[in-house]
Amino acid sequence: MTFEEEILMYGKMFVALDQIENCKDFLYLIPEVRSNLVYAKPKATSPEEVLAVDGRITVVVGMPHAAGRPRFGASSHMARLIIEVMKRDPAYRAGVNFASDSRLAKWLEGYAAEKGWTYSVIDRRKEPDEIKEMEGSSMPWKVSEAIEAAGGRIPKLFYETGAVGKEPVTVLIGIDPMEVVREVCEIARSYNASP
Amino acid sequence: MTFEEEILMYGKMFVALDQIENCKDFLYLIPEVRSNLVYAKPKATSPEEVLAVDGRITVVVGMPHAAGRPRFGASSHMARLIIEVMKRDPAYRAGVNFASDSRLAKWLEGYAAEKGWTYSVIDRRKEPDEIKEMEGSSMPWKVSEAIEAAGGRIPKLFYETGAVGKEPVTVLIGIDPMEVVREVCEIARSYNASP
Amino acid sequence: MTFEEEILMYGKMFVALDQIENCKDFLYLIPEVRSNLVYAKPKATSPEEVLAVDGRITVVVGMPHAAGRPRFGASSHMARLIIEVMKRDPAYRAGVNFASDSRLAKWLEGYAAEKGWTYSVIDRRKEPDEIKEMEGSSMPWKVSEAIEAAGGRIPKLFYETGAVGKEPVTVLIGIDPMEVVREVCEIARSYNASP
Amino acid sequence: MTFEEEILMYGKMFVALDQIENCKDFLYLIPEVRSNLVYAKPKATSPEEVLAVDGRITVVVGMPHAAGRPRFGASSHMARLIIEVMKRDPAYRAGVNFASDSRLAKWLEGYAAEKGWTYSVIDRRKEPDEIKEMEGSSMPWKVSEAIEAAGGRIPKLFYETGAVGKEPVTVLIGIDPMEVVREVCEIARSYNASP
Repeated sequence: MTFEEEILMYGKMFVALDQIENCKDFLYLIPEVRSNLVYAKPKATSPEEVLAVDGRITVVVGMPHAAGRPRFGASSHMARLIIEVMKRDPAYRAGVNFASDSRLAKWLEGYAAEKGWTYSVIDRRKEPDEIKEMEGSSMPWKVSEAIEAAGGRIPKLFYETGAVGKEPVTVLIGIDPMEVVREVCEIARSYNASP
Repeated sequence: MTFEEEILMYGKMFVALDQIENCKDFLYLIPEVRSNLVYAKPKATSPEEVLAVDGRITVVVGMPHAAGRPRFGASSHMARLIIEVMKRDPAYRAGVNFASDSRLAKWLEGYAAEKGWTYSVIDRRKEPDEIKEMEGSSMPWKVSEAIEAAGGRIPKLFYETGAVGKEPVTVLIGIDPMEVVREVCEIARSYNASP
Repeated sequence: MTFEEEILMYGKMFVALDQIENCKDFLYLIPEVRSNLVYAKPKATSPEEVLAVDGRITVVVGMPHAAGRPRFGASSHMARLIIEVMKRDPAYRAGVNFASDSRLAKWLEGYAAEKGWTYSVIDRRKEPDEIKEMEGSSMPWKVSEAIEAAGGRIPKLFYETGAVGKEPVTVLIGIDPMEVVREVCEIARSYNASP
Repeated sequence: MTFEEEILMYGKMFVALDQIENCKDFLYLIPEVRSNLVYAKPKATSPEEVLAVDGRITVVVGMPHAAGRPRFGASSHMARLIIEVMKRDPAYRAGVNFASDSRLAKWLEGYAAEKGWTYSVIDRRKEPDEIKEMEGSSMPWKVSEAIEAAGGRIPKLFYETGAVGKEPVTVLIGIDPMEVVREVCEIARSYNASP
């Protein structure tokens, strides 16, 4: 990757964060663990090659707010998730996580169908104990599970159920952070406007 | 409460946040849901009467970082917790939540004993379904449970186990945010230095 | 000064900064050198005993914005000014500087008369060369000049003309930062509403 | 200009600001009016087409600090300067202003000579009254003056003397903000290390 391509990554994150900070509807989708927005270098294999928001996206003065600046290595969980997805389809380089509950999960399934997006559910209660106990093996399991549940296709949108000590979250993936933010804002607006 | 007393509350929060942002050891105690620091007006009955950090305390550039400024009404969960505690002992007006896991929980029990602090565990798996389902009744149940588990005394430090969708957390309560931050920093330093 | 009094100083600065950041009219009074708001300990003799805004008050997203947090020692110029004023009247412990030009200066003279405030002008062109050249003697000269120009009274509001390399500024002094901010916001609103 | 080129502009500003915020030596070159860093679109004719730091670059916690984020239209003075320079040489699209005094000005002259940079002085006392009075004509006069003083060449570095109400400043121009920041940091380091 050239330095110019890296600079372009910063530029896209900057523009995407500006958009999400102005998306008031997203407020209601920020989970307890806060959202993060990640953007991986092509062929990234470690979180150090994934740009993310330092301190995550939280809520300040009633609006979404990036706590710090975009920084390579600023995310662990979401970074490892996008790295795992990229092994299956290198076109997906960005992702965002957001809140979920059973009502939203159901609504998202319909929304995805309307959009023609593959939607999938990862039931974390099915995670085998030997996977949980082996450092670093949960993420490959989760992504495989999401793909399997979607009949072999990589889901654009997937829902990870809660587990003991783990909040349920939804993840949306895409080509770059600007696409992902545009889509997640539209989700937020549509959901908030739904009856 | 006079306006001067309210200003003094802001001053104490300001000084406490300055201390926690300079407490590098606290970094490792910040949970996925992020920490908050709360400070209630005497006899507070609603989160609007509790000062808290807007956007919670997150991690930026490798240090604890208050995402926004102290604001009345900025916390829901921790605010309701301190309000509930104050019904039993009005002297406690401040609290902070932080990460936990089984190793830390065990260590904290020993630390509390050394300090002469009452320590308690709330096992959320014991929470009756009718409580869970009744809006606003979880917090009174949890605080009662903590007190009961401590033999009728209000615990200075208590550990709330994880549940489905809920991260386990530890809560430390005290007289004001400066006391609470001084104590939680000492906990962080001692724990990080422990073998 | 007790620690509690120092905490109260932080609280007052915090509340005052919250007010000035919400005073949109003040925007037009922020000078090129940016404003600062200072609050001195009683009997302060050095800038280290004066609380001020780290990075000054600038303009971000079209609103007044404190660049950093209140910090003792964060101001030099305005801190030395309030220290000099306190030698004459220890009741004045806070001050703010803001923009000026000939139209505003004239308007302020009328405003001060209406309020019953002593208003004074420091003509920096009158500053003797030997004063300019002697490190640390400009400020005592300026404050003496302001008092003399006001017939021996300490002015509540004074205008310092520009000089070569120096932007003209207005200074408002008061008991504490909350008073000073309330007054300067009222000045900003009245001036912006003036024909 | 394509949207991708605009995004690249944000990326370069982001990277440049990260560098300047980590350049401790630059601290001593920040003028009373604060620095700004500007980056113009090709053929820009208005400040709305010039990216600049919202709130300028100030000093917080003893380090250079961008008060806000890069935003088109955030600068007036420096934006109009780079627009004027671009009329003569469209390759220059970025600039930064910083402090000056007679000692630094003299040192910079030597530094520029060593680097093979054209260096020029604008003596603002020579500005004709009819120019000063005509809205928007000062900047064209200043840039013409700088070029004339440099024997017809566009200076890479120029010094603008103070005038009544105006602080003296130095301006460095370049191809993009990353070049300009790298160069101004080297100036700061060399000057601070000079005897």
